[in-house]
Amino acid sequence: LGLIKFIKVLQIRKEGGEMQALIVAAGRGSRLRHRFSPKPLVPVFGLSLIERIILRCKRAGIREFVIVVGYKAEEIMRKIGDGERYGVKIKYVVNDEWKKGNGVSVLKARGHVGEKFFLLMADHLFDESILEKLKNVSLDKECCILCIDKDLEGDHFNIDDVTKVLEEESSVKRIGKKIQEYNAIDTGIFLCTDSIFDALEESVKRGQYSLSAGNQILADRGKLKTLDVTGHFWVDVDDEIALRKAKRILIRQSAKVSDGPISRRLNRPLSTRISSLLAHYNITPNQMTFFSFFLALSSALLFYLGGYPRILAAGILAQLASILDGCDGELARLKFLFSKFGEKLDKVLDRFADGLIILGMTRAAWVQTYNEVVWFAGFLALIGSFTNSYTATWYDEIIKKKKGFRLGRDVRLFIVFVGALLNQLPFTLIILAIITIVETIRRLFVLRYEHEVTQ
Amino acid sequence: LGLIKFIKVLQIRKEGGEMQALIVAAGRGSRLRHRFSPKPLVPVFGLSLIERIILRCKRAGIREFVIVVGYKAEEIMRKIGDGERYGVKIKYVVNDEWKKGNGVSVLKARGHVGEKFFLLMADHLFDESILEKLKNVSLDKECCILCIDKDLEGDHFNIDDVTKVLEEESSVKRIGKKIQEYNAIDTGIFLCTDSIFDALEESVKRGQYSLSAGNQILADRGKLKTLDVTGHFWVDVDDEIALRKAKRILIRQSAKVSDGPISRRLNRPLSTRISSLLAHYNITPNQMTFFSFFLALSSALLFYLGGYPRILAAGILAQLASILDGCDGELARLKFLFSKFGEKLDKVLDRFADGLIILGMTRAAWVQTYNEVVWFAGFLALIGSFTNSYTATWYDEIIKKKKGFRLGRDVRLFIVFVGALLNQLPFTLIILAIITIVETIRRLFVLRYEHEVTQ
Repeated sequence: LGLIKFIKVLQIRKEGGEMQALIVAAGRGSRLRHRFSPKPLVPVFGLSLIERIILRCKRAGIREFVIVVGYKAEEIMRKIGDGERYGVKIKYVVNDEWKKGNGVSVLKARGHVGEKFFLLMADHLFDESILEKLKNVSLDKECCILCIDKDLEGDHFNIDDVTKVLEEESSVKRIGKKIQEYNAIDTGIFLCTDSIFDALEESVKRGQYSLSAGNQILADRGKLKTLDVTGHFWVDVDDEIALRKAKRILIRQSAKVSDGPISRRLNRPLSTRISSLLAHYNITPNQMTFFSFFLALSSALLFYLGGYPRILAAGILAQLASILDGCDGELARLKFLFSKFGEKLDKVLDRFADGLIILGMTRAAWVQTYNEVVWFAGFLALIGSFTNSYTATWYDEIIKKKKGFRLGRDVRLFIVFVGALLNQLPFTLIILAIITIVETIRRLFVLRYEHEVTQ
Repeated sequence: LGLIKFIKVLQIRKEGGEMQALIVAAGRGSRLRHRFSPKPLVPVFGLSLIERIILRCKRAGIREFVIVVGYKAEEIMRKIGDGERYGVKIKYVVNDEWKKGNGVSVLKARGHVGEKFFLLMADHLFDESILEKLKNVSLDKECCILCIDKDLEGDHFNIDDVTKVLEEESSVKRIGKKIQEYNAIDTGIFLCTDSIFDALEESVKRGQYSLSAGNQILADRGKLKTLDVTGHFWVDVDDEIALRKAKRILIRQSAKVSDGPISRRLNRPLSTRISSLLAHYNITPNQMTFFSFFLALSSALLFYLGGYPRILAAGILAQLASILDGCDGELARLKFLFSKFGEKLDKVLDRFADGLIILGMTRAAWVQTYNEVVWFAGFLALIGSFTNSYTATWYDEIIKKKKGFRLGRDVRLFIVFVGALLNQLPFTLIILAIITIVETIRRLFVLRYEHEVTQ
């Protein structure tokens, strides 16, 4: 019996996972002056705002969309299409009365959505973690839930333009752009039932056409609940300033948490800049992976040929490959092109590149010295580098929890770069061998300690 | 509301996970003639039968035990203790009337166990997957569940001695050692409620003292349900033949699924034999890891020194290290000494060993030929070997689903062994370089195909 109940609950939740999203993309968005108009089509790193919202929802498991269009409806419908391209289903509702207000736009979708649906604005970017959180909240048939942000000092909105909320005991008391007393911000992300349409019908009858007016009616009845999503990423792309802010945040999010010191200070600031430029073109993350690999191969070859000018060029190429190595992941995250295969391909090609660069350096050092110790050092540097990469996944798990020093590819290739600059390859190989092998052994000790603590 | 229900169901299930096990260890087990007596203390690879059952239960999340002792009760209580050593809690119930039958032993535990508990026999070994399966079945307060095996032809029991079951529609109709009509075997693994005690009291009143007699009363009321566990490992260690059979199965289970061809045919048959001998001594898996690493280091050193007799010895040591490399995992699984750190330590030391053996071989080949190509080949062999290991975890996931060829450490070290035997080190390095690099590239293609299919 318990099991059956359990399965039933799971089924309910599963149905919940196949929910729809209603996106309001009918307004004009006049504050954002942009050569691309209407606003939902404003591009951010090669994807329009509305595309970003659709792909973000898809990551949260939403596959069906109803989009209310009004201003330049044809253009949006033509550009976005039926969703096949994004692996989702999109239906459109055209609202000719879009000028009246966004409440009317929502109301037009009545009958086109299911019992329970997400309500989203085409100009609000957000992280899927908000939807994941919202999905798991239980919702009464007569209620709606609004995600609110309690960080009133945040710079991800313009306090003069944003819709404010007075919240008490997880319910909205007052909502509107011009209310005097407030303690939260409306993020424009809702989980709704049919009750929103009833409320909007009533507010329209009263001659109030904004979504907030309908929400105020729901709130008056105590039926507009709140979900606190303070700290999660969301941004109202209302004007040029907000657009630039959104871009900065997206760029920052495209970097990895486990970056090493060279990556954080040198590579990432450069690679994210490059990625944000590349994002406007049709360059795939895998193409960047191969390009960075090609640079590393060229570096290895130049090292192999030996002689100072070539060694210097090889060192610069190695560091360049290290910088561009970040772009594939950044592009993937910026443009929703993440693939597990791509991630693995990058890692394996990095190992080949590391190995061949060390081989090239060893050969160059050999020609300089004809001392067998060089080969020995080269082998040990390779063993050390590989065991570093081999233990990286486990070790990253640990430093995710508590910060620790990370000796990774960024540091190794930077040492190669400096060594080449100074034309000190034998010494560089010895240094590489020592620090990488010591690092692997150190990680084993950290790992043993961690397992003792957790077991 | 749905969420609250969901949490409640989860809580019920969690409580289910903290259940107790009642182990019947009161009988004499006279059929198993063994210098160790009583039967629950008969050792199997360094652990007694009852220790194996406790540790198996622990793996399924059971932390509290009630053990009914009778024959040589003192000895069992002294040897097993309060469970602290195993990280569990053990209480004992002494049954002076153990000679009457095992039904009386179960009945003595009344009041010492909770609402719902596993009922297990001290002489039945099994896999924790059975308990995991049983844990997830919902159970009415008035019912008990018996795990049954429908493979009547199996060799994991003696059909003349085993308790048989006539099952209809997931309920036991008849149960006993001597029933004529049957379609399943009693595995001795139950999930019980208080109802078992009521039934046993009634059967004892009738002068029937076996557990089966009580079960027949439950069955007559339609309250003894069945769970089919055909195919899961369980064995009734009733006599010497069954004991040997159990050992064989445990040894087989201690090997890994992802073994390569050399491992399956040569290394594993030898290493499991060595492990089954070592299991009787206090040798830890990590000690075996270090011993195998030491052999590999010796091999690398002998290669490095060069000259045919040493090269031959180095090749033999490499193959020996490869064989003993299996023992740590086998010992861990045989003796419930599995640790995540141990597994990782083994992997990292294997990488150092691989690298140093190739370095030694390269040096020996260099001294033989003074041809730079040898260093080149050595480097590439190292890059290939490492990228093989680097991609092994992902690749193993794939060949678990659908069988494929596995080029692993077993094959690589066997090639080293053959190369040393034939004193063909330069050629061996070239072969190693080619096949390992080709294998890594092949794996990338397989991986890409898999991801395309699954996405």
